[in-house]
Amino acid sequence: MTLSIAAATQGLPPETVFALLERVRRKSPRVHAITNAVAQTFTANVLLALGAVPSMTLAPEEVAGFAASADALLVNLGTLDETRRQAIPLAVAAAQEAGRPVCLDPVFIDRSKPRRLFARELLGIMPDVVRLNGAELDALFQGRAEADALIAGGTVLAVTGQEDKVESLGEDFRLLNGHALMSRVTATGCAGGAVLAAFAAVESDRALAAATGLSVFNIAGEIAAERAGGPGTFVPELLDALYGLSLRDIEIRLKTA
Amino acid sequence: MTLSIAAATQGLPPETVFALLERVRRKSPRVHAITNAVAQTFTANVLLALGAVPSMTLAPEEVAGFAASADALLVNLGTLDETRRQAIPLAVAAAQEAGRPVCLDPVFIDRSKPRRLFARELLGIMPDVVRLNGAELDALFQGRAEADALIAGGTVLAVTGQEDKVESLGEDFRLLNGHALMSRVTATGCAGGAVLAAFAAVESDRALAAATGLSVFNIAGEIAAERAGGPGTFVPELLDALYGLSLRDIEIRLKTA
Amino acid sequence: MTLSIAAATQGLPPETVFALLERVRRKSPRVHAITNAVAQTFTANVLLALGAVPSMTLAPEEVAGFAASADALLVNLGTLDETRRQAIPLAVAAAQEAGRPVCLDPVFIDRSKPRRLFARELLGIMPDVVRLNGAELDALFQGRAEADALIAGGTVLAVTGQEDKVESLGEDFRLLNGHALMSRVTATGCAGGAVLAAFAAVESDRALAAATGLSVFNIAGEIAAERAGGPGTFVPELLDALYGLSLRDIEIRLKTA
Repeated sequence: MTLSIAAATQGLPPETVFALLERVRRKSPRVHAITNAVAQTFTANVLLALGAVPSMTLAPEEVAGFAASADALLVNLGTLDETRRQAIPLAVAAAQEAGRPVCLDPVFIDRSKPRRLFARELLGIMPDVVRLNGAELDALFQGRAEADALIAGGTVLAVTGQEDKVESLGEDFRLLNGHALMSRVTATGCAGGAVLAAFAAVESDRALAAATGLSVFNIAGEIAAERAGGPGTFVPELLDALYGLSLRDIEIRLKTA
Repeated sequence: MTLSIAAATQGLPPETVFALLERVRRKSPRVHAITNAVAQTFTANVLLALGAVPSMTLAPEEVAGFAASADALLVNLGTLDETRRQAIPLAVAAAQEAGRPVCLDPVFIDRSKPRRLFARELLGIMPDVVRLNGAELDALFQGRAEADALIAGGTVLAVTGQEDKVESLGEDFRLLNGHALMSRVTATGCAGGAVLAAFAAVESDRALAAATGLSVFNIAGEIAAERAGGPGTFVPELLDALYGLSLRDIEIRLKTA
Repeated sequence: MTLSIAAATQGLPPETVFALLERVRRKSPRVHAITNAVAQTFTANVLLALGAVPSMTLAPEEVAGFAASADALLVNLGTLDETRRQAIPLAVAAAQEAGRPVCLDPVFIDRSKPRRLFARELLGIMPDVVRLNGAELDALFQGRAEADALIAGGTVLAVTGQEDKVESLGEDFRLLNGHALMSRVTATGCAGGAVLAAFAAVESDRALAAATGLSVFNIAGEIAAERAGGPGTFVPELLDALYGLSLRDIEIRLKTA
């Protein structure tokens, strides 16, 4: 059972989405991404296509410095080995000390108890954004009250699925863009988490930033799916679409509920 | 000198190949892949394009759980670091306890003595399938009798090269599909090992599964080579071809000897 | 401030560039690449498209053997974790003992003090080629005299930027090829370092090898940019362009100052 999200849906004007995208392109925020081994290259390329800058080191003597000087931190729990377990608290402390937003993506915590426990501990840091699907949402919280408590503390939940939902203390959003091919390519979800971090770096309304990030990435996915012959050509087309995304593309395609 | 494989060749009906491919697409087996750092992303995308699901964690506290709940295990010995050395026995024990097939790919054991010794120890687990090229075959066994003993115990050998050979206690196969561009892209062989694991997950006749997996992957390679302008565009085209592979494609192209 | 490079520019005949490229294609040198986790797959594919052969293991019990039997060693300092810190001195000692050229790429040393200190220690091994950008050049040396001392010892500096400069005890080169899209894709610089290593493997005039490697890679980048719709399709096009690069392409495009 997926915990229900009672989203008081609101509109997301295309002009606002495009203005935030242009802000990312102009400011080129650096996102320090602690992410899984399978997702690293694609995540770096997604950030670059978006106009942001990736860094990805995990070494304990370096990671705090990289995180503190970045504009946002992504913590993705895929391939959660000892190096990543050590790097995460160091990076989170440095990013929060420097006042940078932290985005948590608790990948596959529904499949691994040690990872679920680690993710639950991480909630104590009060991440700015948590990106997860329905199964991960159910695994992360022991009941709806726990999720509500986190939101009450200021964390934004971005719950992905057929329909994406952004839930926050302020506005909520229900988002309807995306394409089935995105789930036939590894690490699209993980790279999407990095997109959320990039938008959080340039917009202090974290719910708006999350809704914009999800929409931008999913619209690029729709454009790429139309151009692609399958999941292989979809990957380069997705990066091209992100790189070239225009106000017109967003006006035509943006779907909220 | 490459140990000779005395294959009592038999036919591989296109309808059988396509039926097994459709079974993979319908059942979406999860393959837990312990594979080298260079091959991880491409291997995950090959599995997804095929219709299977990848998981790739190596962490000692997680890998047994992931392997036990997967439908097959791939053990690829590339970039064989301490983390992988620790993960492999844990994953193999969990997969075998759960009755899942184990596919071994002893990459480059002809270039590294420590790796060769590790691979020889792994033979003790009686893997269901061993995928290797001629040089690796010569390095793995100290003589033809050792290879025969392994086969007598139920292991299927899938020996790749200009011509691919599948040798087993039951049927043997000689397969003639493939394209030279496949060797101009990193990790195609490694990803091919994951394809074998996916087919072993859905077909208990391991020799038939191996022959089908090799043929499907190599036919996709031929189609991709016709569409590609070189080794770069070959990669996305290979994934598209795998994704879209039809009975007609197999009927036209399947070549056995 | 970027340390100035007083390059006594000389010509680089297209025929020479193509002859060295053909030598790489014919000899297929193996480059053992110790490189960062983000760059591994792309670097391997760049080497294969060029006609070289990659190997990438980092394990302490294997890396010396792989490096000693390779034709050149690349040491890239990205994602400099404990495994890489241990592997680098082992690989360097083995490569130098075997008389193989060593190419150093001190990525992002301007952003990380521990990495800068590690890079400065590595200068003691007298690498054959150091590839770096202006910010990394400033971080690596405490003044122009240090850079000059290294060059006087026989090291070639390949300084990349809007304009690439190769500085050596012998000839210097100023090179003007390349395209802005190359910096919108992760690891193009890192993969370029591997190209330098491949050319150093087949040409003992290290400055000429470096100038050729930079030019070949940058010309392929120009061709790819013309064919690509953005940074996504640029990646496969770059590999195709490297694979197919002809004397005519080089004659038309090579630009030196």
